[in-house]
Amino acid sequence: MEVMEILKKYSESIDHEIEEALSTITPLNLYESSNHLIKAGGKKIRPALAVLTCEVVGGKAEYALKTAAAIELIHTFSLIHDDIMDKDDMRRGKSSVHVLWGEPMAILAGDTLFSKAFETVIRTRIDDSSYKRVIKALDTVVDSCIKICEGQACDMSFEGKFEVSEAEYMNMIYKKTAALIAAATKGGAIIGGGNPEEVAALEEYGKLIGLAFQIQDDYLDVVSDEESLGKPVGSDIVEGKMTLMVVKALEKASPEDKEKLISILKENNPDGVGEAIAIFEKYGSLQYTHKVALDNVRKAKELLDIFEDSEAKDALILLADYVLERQN
Amino acid sequence: MEVMEILKKYSESIDHEIEEALSTITPLNLYESSNHLIKAGGKKIRPALAVLTCEVVGGKAEYALKTAAAIELIHTFSLIHDDIMDKDDMRRGKSSVHVLWGEPMAILAGDTLFSKAFETVIRTRIDDSSYKRVIKALDTVVDSCIKICEGQACDMSFEGKFEVSEAEYMNMIYKKTAALIAAATKGGAIIGGGNPEEVAALEEYGKLIGLAFQIQDDYLDVVSDEESLGKPVGSDIVEGKMTLMVVKALEKASPEDKEKLISILKENNPDGVGEAIAIFEKYGSLQYTHKVALDNVRKAKELLDIFEDSEAKDALILLADYVLERQN
Repeated sequence: MEVMEILKKYSESIDHEIEEALSTITPLNLYESSNHLIKAGGKKIRPALAVLTCEVVGGKAEYALKTAAAIELIHTFSLIHDDIMDKDDMRRGKSSVHVLWGEPMAILAGDTLFSKAFETVIRTRIDDSSYKRVIKALDTVVDSCIKICEGQACDMSFEGKFEVSEAEYMNMIYKKTAALIAAATKGGAIIGGGNPEEVAALEEYGKLIGLAFQIQDDYLDVVSDEESLGKPVGSDIVEGKMTLMVVKALEKASPEDKEKLISILKENNPDGVGEAIAIFEKYGSLQYTHKVALDNVRKAKELLDIFEDSEAKDALILLADYVLERQN
Repeated sequence: MEVMEILKKYSESIDHEIEEALSTITPLNLYESSNHLIKAGGKKIRPALAVLTCEVVGGKAEYALKTAAAIELIHTFSLIHDDIMDKDDMRRGKSSVHVLWGEPMAILAGDTLFSKAFETVIRTRIDDSSYKRVIKALDTVVDSCIKICEGQACDMSFEGKFEVSEAEYMNMIYKKTAALIAAATKGGAIIGGGNPEEVAALEEYGKLIGLAFQIQDDYLDVVSDEESLGKPVGSDIVEGKMTLMVVKALEKASPEDKEKLISILKENNPDGVGEAIAIFEKYGSLQYTHKVALDNVRKAKELLDIFEDSEAKDALILLADYVLERQN
């Protein structure tokens, strides 16, 4: 089975859950603004992970559909609020929610999706003894929401600051990106009735592929091409964004190269991209970054060794590899 | 016992729960922005209602402390986001969160408090059989969050629109203000182990005093004095805000008076306040509004008849009356 087939297998049921959750929102402009990004698509890797981890521990796929839908709702909520904070006007090839409905309605649309996510998990019904499981899944989802906020605040605090250690950077991307993916895999495992060892392994699997996903994102920005990326190569450099390549280069570089790189990151000018990449190469930053992503994916797949062979296990292995194979 | 004594009785335990919930937030600026309005005070009527309704159905006060704290966290989250949307620069006598930390951090601080509210309810532990109760309390809290968003969107949609019916207005204030108060009283009753009849009565009690609270707010803006209000009399008129008095006056007024009132509401000028109030008086709007608030409080208190006499019941009666007695 290929990755796109895996994602497609569950997407209809997940879309149905999301549609049902959002169907009752009034008034019309809140309904439309809340639905805008959902309808714009997205690969829905996160919800698929929740369903697959539920299956890999022996649960039925349908047990995890509401948790899966909730994870996608939280992802969408965070995109809407992030786009306001970062003043990003485009998302999934469409205008951002705040561009179309204004910031007040975009704040509300995010808040509404956030509430709907919790409502959706709460409505999970497996049997009369499943309340404890649902509470644990909720706890997992909520914990990731707190981390998303903390990660975004960390990321904002890095702006214009160039003394960020690798550990600080990894903690930021863990909270901002990997925590929700780990909540999908942990939440799915809990709802599926996994034992503590299984739940811990799948949480760690989600965390590792989540980290690899973000690191690969940083890496592709420099090594991919404009057509695949859908934006110019080196956009992160022009925006002065902190990435693992920047962190590593600043750690290793000579005082002159360090000063040069910082001045390129500060000046928001595409002309500096080539020189920045040359500095990354000089200090092995690109190689290092690629290796960290590879190692994380390898470790993630090793964690699946405790599970018996199944279609869900194969799918989780393929999804881990996909993190590195994708070109955008 | 007086109202301030009732509120004081539980405030220390509630403050402790909130403080504990927020203690782990990092980085520092997210911690400080999330705590700013909490530390600025507030009467904490909502959390007191959660504890008292828990007690009135026979539960221990401590069962409801986490739900109570969550209700206050949600109230605070909604104030932070509302202040951004409404561009209000002051709150509880201090600068708003977005004025001090900027809009991006204020959005995040609200999102963080929202997440923390759910985390807090989830951590309620009464005994091994209480998971179902906790899920039901969570459902109640989440449902009120969705209503708060919908109510705020409705309120925003009323701006500049003067064809709002009484039913539409009441639905808006129910969602925007009363739903969270009803969640406090219903949530407390659920956590306290109330039977379905008791839970329904206390939810309705909360809804009715919540509506009375908002209607009285509208009424005081016109009949109180600047010193008690802490702002000039008729501020709502100057801001062109929809209130029950406006809805009723526009319903009853002659075409000339209707046109006059609409033009005053549109012009944002304090000079029109006297004339607007004269129109309210001419069509019995003030009297009508006061009567609706009184009726709601009376009905709310009648709903408490099903409970045996207790200190908690007396306190709930006093709090219902307090809605009308307060001067600001």
